[in-house]
Amino acid sequence: MREVAIAGVGMTPFGISDRSNIEMFSDAALEAIDRSNLEPGDMEALFFGNCLGDFEEGQLHMAPFVHSAIGLPMAAPATRFESACATATVAIRHAALLVAAGVYDVVLVGGTERAAAMGTPLATRTFAMACHAQYETPTGITFPGVFAMATHMYAAKYGLTLADLKRHMAEVAVKNHFHGAKNPKAHFRKEISVEKVLGGAMIADPLQLLDCCPFSDGAAAVVIASADKARQLVEKPVFVAGTGQAAAGPLNLQQDLTRVRSRETASAAAYKQAGIGPADIDVCELHDCFTMAEILAIEALGFYEPGRGFDAASRGETRLGGKGVTVNPSGGLKAKGHPIGATGAAQVVEIVTQLRGEAGGRQVGGARVGLVDTLGGDFGTICNIVLRR
Amino acid sequence: MREVAIAGVGMTPFGISDRSNIEMFSDAALEAIDRSNLEPGDMEALFFGNCLGDFEEGQLHMAPFVHSAIGLPMAAPATRFESACATATVAIRHAALLVAAGVYDVVLVGGTERAAAMGTPLATRTFAMACHAQYETPTGITFPGVFAMATHMYAAKYGLTLADLKRHMAEVAVKNHFHGAKNPKAHFRKEISVEKVLGGAMIADPLQLLDCCPFSDGAAAVVIASADKARQLVEKPVFVAGTGQAAAGPLNLQQDLTRVRSRETASAAAYKQAGIGPADIDVCELHDCFTMAEILAIEALGFYEPGRGFDAASRGETRLGGKGVTVNPSGGLKAKGHPIGATGAAQVVEIVTQLRGEAGGRQVGGARVGLVDTLGGDFGTICNIVLRR
Repeated sequence: MREVAIAGVGMTPFGISDRSNIEMFSDAALEAIDRSNLEPGDMEALFFGNCLGDFEEGQLHMAPFVHSAIGLPMAAPATRFESACATATVAIRHAALLVAAGVYDVVLVGGTERAAAMGTPLATRTFAMACHAQYETPTGITFPGVFAMATHMYAAKYGLTLADLKRHMAEVAVKNHFHGAKNPKAHFRKEISVEKVLGGAMIADPLQLLDCCPFSDGAAAVVIASADKARQLVEKPVFVAGTGQAAAGPLNLQQDLTRVRSRETASAAAYKQAGIGPADIDVCELHDCFTMAEILAIEALGFYEPGRGFDAASRGETRLGGKGVTVNPSGGLKAKGHPIGATGAAQVVEIVTQLRGEAGGRQVGGARVGLVDTLGGDFGTICNIVLRR
Repeated sequence: MREVAIAGVGMTPFGISDRSNIEMFSDAALEAIDRSNLEPGDMEALFFGNCLGDFEEGQLHMAPFVHSAIGLPMAAPATRFESACATATVAIRHAALLVAAGVYDVVLVGGTERAAAMGTPLATRTFAMACHAQYETPTGITFPGVFAMATHMYAAKYGLTLADLKRHMAEVAVKNHFHGAKNPKAHFRKEISVEKVLGGAMIADPLQLLDCCPFSDGAAAVVIASADKARQLVEKPVFVAGTGQAAAGPLNLQQDLTRVRSRETASAAAYKQAGIGPADIDVCELHDCFTMAEILAIEALGFYEPGRGFDAASRGETRLGGKGVTVNPSGGLKAKGHPIGATGAAQVVEIVTQLRGEAGGRQVGGARVGLVDTLGGDFGTICNIVLRR
């Protein structure tokens, strides 16, 4: 298996858009191709992520139409991936594997979603189809409920009062909004306070409005190439050092929601392939769909021991300039936004931008190694990618 | 890239089922695993195909739940593919590529769909989401209309009367029902006559009811392994000799519907990788969603020159024992049935069964090389796989 790199990245602004999925993805893809100093005709395959275009636009089988809109050659296959919110990360992992194998030299990969455009009721209901339809849906659960349960379990397991834990969770939202305010493409570009978080509407007790990421529209894309080719194309290729992906069943089989075993499994595989450990990570984009989700993630990824990550944001460790791993410098799902099919690709875009030293006001100084972490459903899919400059 | 083989196959009966997608796929998968002399714990990844489980069962993100139901290990990733009716073939192609690359030694792959369960109106409407939502859907077109247009264009281009062409098309249906009657797992197991086809209800002029495949429920799965491993596991592994996949845009860009350029492109890639040509194929399972679709396929796959395939069934050449390539000995989509997300895997199951000489009353004598051909949408995706014993 040969070395693989990302040559170029592209991304639309995240937020509310009146453009179709095909239009948004084309914008992101053409930017990624252009920044790779390539043309659409150079792409040898398209790996494409989208979750709910069938519900939102009546468009199943979107990959070949995206392919055509961008002007890819007929001989370049177009393949859709869907792994709920981890969709684009899974697509990128598979593109990297096939470039590493020598099947392709250059692959366009990414994702798109119109989630804000759906409106909150339809988006909540359709997103919840990533729960188990037989065992979970009949209980009425949606994702805020899943992470509310995890919050209660975490507080009970580690002897925290909910009031204390909620204050630490609020600090996660405050940090990610602080970062997002520095990201010109973020859905929300304003800082918030702990008081504002704790004064928000109750969504799923104990989660309040600002514990939750928004529904966003947006697309992101990257061009993956063999490392040799990427070095010829661009000055600062970013290398794919390792990937991991794991699967878990419905919540009743997962038992302890405070330990995300699928994430521990996936990240262990990615670290192993990269020949590194959590201590080597300088910057991480991880799946903070809810504030509690970030706390669970920094523990499962090995940045903190189980039960020790809850106050990382409060202590400033995960903030830009903090002494720990900088977590979600893009603003994360919380502030940058969460167009589900695009999210993993946007995380890769951010890490590539950071490792190239091109992140402007949100640059993590001296970042050499970055980690992408994306969660699909209620921990059913986890995909991790280690990138290095 | 190392040699890859199929160790075991499994398939539910196709037809009308009261079992869920997860249950049906589990049945097929456990059969495939068992016939490979393996256990679920031996699977290193699941590549899973499904198209419309979100509409039919409210289940997005089905792959990890299937994975859990079968008992696969957490470290084995579960990834969903969707390429409309070519879904499972595309999943199998990617599984074969990653086993060839040495990323995995053993992969479970296949697909499932509850299409009969949807009922014809919802199935027709949701299947049609594989047309282009912006350029095609507003015209009111669904797939019978696409192939009706192709039929008119074919008749006009080659100077045939519609009455003549329709009689030859009816012979395709008669042949595939003749084959399907010999397949214990086929949705329709009865022979029909040309008169019955020509007396059927009009669906989309000139296509009548028996020109159209049914909506079916069902699942199919295969275990793909390195050739070395497959030889250790089973007596008669079947080898993946070549694969191809191509993409095409909306119909307005395809122009001539009588020439399926995406199929010509995909099959050329598969033949090239296998080091063979159309003349080397003994048996073919191809995408006869409509009788006209089989005629277009046998031409684009190179078994007949363009404009020369319309009377192949009438002349008995594509029938069991005919002098040409035996086409759709399983009964094809027409008689075996068409649970869209499972169809490509079922085609592979049939070719493997044929190459092993285990097809009973529908056995193609001395078959050594087989071809799978699956079409997604209105020619947006084509995937071909060459198998050899």
